[in-house]
Amino acid sequence: MQGKSEQHKPHVVILGGGFGGLECCRRLKGADVLVTLIDRHNHHLFQPLLYQVATAGLSAPEIAHPIRSILSGQENARVLLDEALAIDPAAKHIELKESGRMEYDQLVLAVGARTNYFGKDHWEPHAPGLKTLEDARAIRHRLLLAFERAERERDPDRRERLMRVVVVGGGATGVELAGAFAELTKRVLARDFRNIDPSRAHVILLEVAPRILGAFHPALSESARRQLESLGVEVRLNQRIKDIREGVVELADGALHAETIVWGAGVRPAAICDDLPCEKDRSGRLKVAPDLAVPGCPGVYAIGDIVHLVDAKGRPVPGVSPAAMQMGRHVARSIRARLAGKPPPPPFAYFDKGSMATIGRSRAIAQIGRIRFSGLTAWLAWLFVHLVFLVGFRNKLAVLLQWFYSYVHFRRGARLIS
Amino acid sequence: MQGKSEQHKPHVVILGGGFGGLECCRRLKGADVLVTLIDRHNHHLFQPLLYQVATAGLSAPEIAHPIRSILSGQENARVLLDEALAIDPAAKHIELKESGRMEYDQLVLAVGARTNYFGKDHWEPHAPGLKTLEDARAIRHRLLLAFERAERERDPDRRERLMRVVVVGGGATGVELAGAFAELTKRVLARDFRNIDPSRAHVILLEVAPRILGAFHPALSESARRQLESLGVEVRLNQRIKDIREGVVELADGALHAETIVWGAGVRPAAICDDLPCEKDRSGRLKVAPDLAVPGCPGVYAIGDIVHLVDAKGRPVPGVSPAAMQMGRHVARSIRARLAGKPPPPPFAYFDKGSMATIGRSRAIAQIGRIRFSGLTAWLAWLFVHLVFLVGFRNKLAVLLQWFYSYVHFRRGARLIS
Repeated sequence: MQGKSEQHKPHVVILGGGFGGLECCRRLKGADVLVTLIDRHNHHLFQPLLYQVATAGLSAPEIAHPIRSILSGQENARVLLDEALAIDPAAKHIELKESGRMEYDQLVLAVGARTNYFGKDHWEPHAPGLKTLEDARAIRHRLLLAFERAERERDPDRRERLMRVVVVGGGATGVELAGAFAELTKRVLARDFRNIDPSRAHVILLEVAPRILGAFHPALSESARRQLESLGVEVRLNQRIKDIREGVVELADGALHAETIVWGAGVRPAAICDDLPCEKDRSGRLKVAPDLAVPGCPGVYAIGDIVHLVDAKGRPVPGVSPAAMQMGRHVARSIRARLAGKPPPPPFAYFDKGSMATIGRSRAIAQIGRIRFSGLTAWLAWLFVHLVFLVGFRNKLAVLLQWFYSYVHFRRGARLIS
Repeated sequence: MQGKSEQHKPHVVILGGGFGGLECCRRLKGADVLVTLIDRHNHHLFQPLLYQVATAGLSAPEIAHPIRSILSGQENARVLLDEALAIDPAAKHIELKESGRMEYDQLVLAVGARTNYFGKDHWEPHAPGLKTLEDARAIRHRLLLAFERAERERDPDRRERLMRVVVVGGGATGVELAGAFAELTKRVLARDFRNIDPSRAHVILLEVAPRILGAFHPALSESARRQLESLGVEVRLNQRIKDIREGVVELADGALHAETIVWGAGVRPAAICDDLPCEKDRSGRLKVAPDLAVPGCPGVYAIGDIVHLVDAKGRPVPGVSPAAMQMGRHVARSIRARLAGKPPPPPFAYFDKGSMATIGRSRAIAQIGRIRFSGLTAWLAWLFVHLVFLVGFRNKLAVLLQWFYSYVHFRRGARLIS
């Protein structure tokens, strides 16, 4: 498929067009290699805002951008809409669903994580996770339809059940979802119905640990809990889930009935990582070398949230987008060094710019080093950071307008049921 | 479901939340009736721009708005997400899919048209029409996927077939689609592929008559044909279709092979109109009385493109959105007059503000009375009219930005395949 001169260039195959894969690809611009970026979707997704699509705050195209379009100016890169089925690290080739066998010199695994049900995969249909645009659309669809059904429902018990939302998991995703669901149901939808009172909707956040947002300082966890409660979210801590069936979450102290149940309790690497002959941690993440190479698989690197690594500073690297991008950059640097016959860069070290979680309009928490703040300041910081990092000018402006409009009017435009 | 005082008010049921139904509902604001607006979808669709969603120029939420949100300020109106299965005009009730039986005093049929295959319904899966957001997404999905497959394809014949688009029907929809497909494939996608050259994509417009846009003056038809050809569209006139199979259109002089085939050749009323005991025209449209009442069905009105009517000025009313809105207004006026015990308004007369069709960037035709113009002026007029009529501030601004951005950069953001 490539021209003759390109056939003799080293072939770098990147699996996955998320933050890590895309960054690695871009950092190889101008290098004397042929880069093939392969993704199952034709778009790069701004995953930190996916919960906004699930809660009708943003529409899908506002947080997604065609990968082809992002890379159209990079001559040594080509994009393939395809899916890797298997990796043969000994023979240095991969099997693709549509294109068949493809050989590589260097392979960068940036396939990302999927929802982890910790062995209870049969819960998935009743409590979908949030990893793709389809997931987000399905959750939004279910919630909006539940309220439409509540509007027609005469039985008060059934009506209450239709208006109840349970979010499982008090990490960043769960907190963001719960806060956004509360805003959507209690404020946005409140104006639009005649027979039901959406402000009586009931959003419940379940967390197994004694506090939410365990990765943050305990004071911020507590602040986040208070901010969630001020939005009307019921936060239940120390809750171990016994079972999930259609419309029911079984807890130690009884059953919770809810039409909408969303799972935000954990992730694990995409299935393609399972068969790799290298050491993994308990949730299946690859234990990579300090240079992000996969031990036992020559020429293979892994980056992003499929990686288990204690970095050069002695701290575990979190599964967040800044870490994925830094890893992508590091691998690109290694490949360039190898091409130039130079020594490899020093082992990977994660530069932590701080972390934040948003809860709702003017509600968030943030910690940057030892500095901690919450409320409006944290929310503005969160807004700023997310706008700066959004790919593509159009999206940035559209998202800004959308947010500004939502902020002023408490309306949400992306409320389509299809 | 309604309160006690409302139970004694006349019940106006409006089937369909398109231009006509929505306008009728809004014009009943403050009237001493209970209005129930029923639609299968939760959104009002700005149908004149649907072709932009099919061709990746706009995203779905930019041309759709939740009906609940539009009517949230109207106290005598409630919105039901439901579908009418049958009408019993003698008993004055309708059967709804979810809510069961509903009685009415006045019924306004504003259900709109569906794609008409003129008895060849088995062509539908191979040549989908464009009436709903789902249709638009399916067409876009098919086209973008065809180009992704072309990028992987090594056989030149198959590659050419994947990059060929056939549009059936040279009316406004067909012309807009063909022009937008040409712009998308030849300009927008042209930058993004490595193995194929999208500018060699082939868009063919088939029309059975000796000229396209038969509703316009022949000089404008000719101008539209030239403007289409300047975009690279092949316009074939006097083409009668013998058969359509998967990927093939059979014409008198041979077969056309194309991965993407879209049907824009005609419409007929939604199925619910079929069983009404009143006279219909050849394409199934209801022959209504001069006041838009359906003969033989007391209390039932019909509006929009399901209606066949020669108006008070002696001219047939076209199936366009301004006509639907004027009809909706007229029916609201009739209902108000009846409530007040006043004489009915004079028979319906369509006020023709002119008509236009767009072909592409800076390309359009327009006729207002005897004035005819084409090219950039017509396109600016078209842009202005469509922005003014878009429902909802957010959408207007977003669409304007999107268009401006597309105009300057020739990019399209809404290129998601899902």
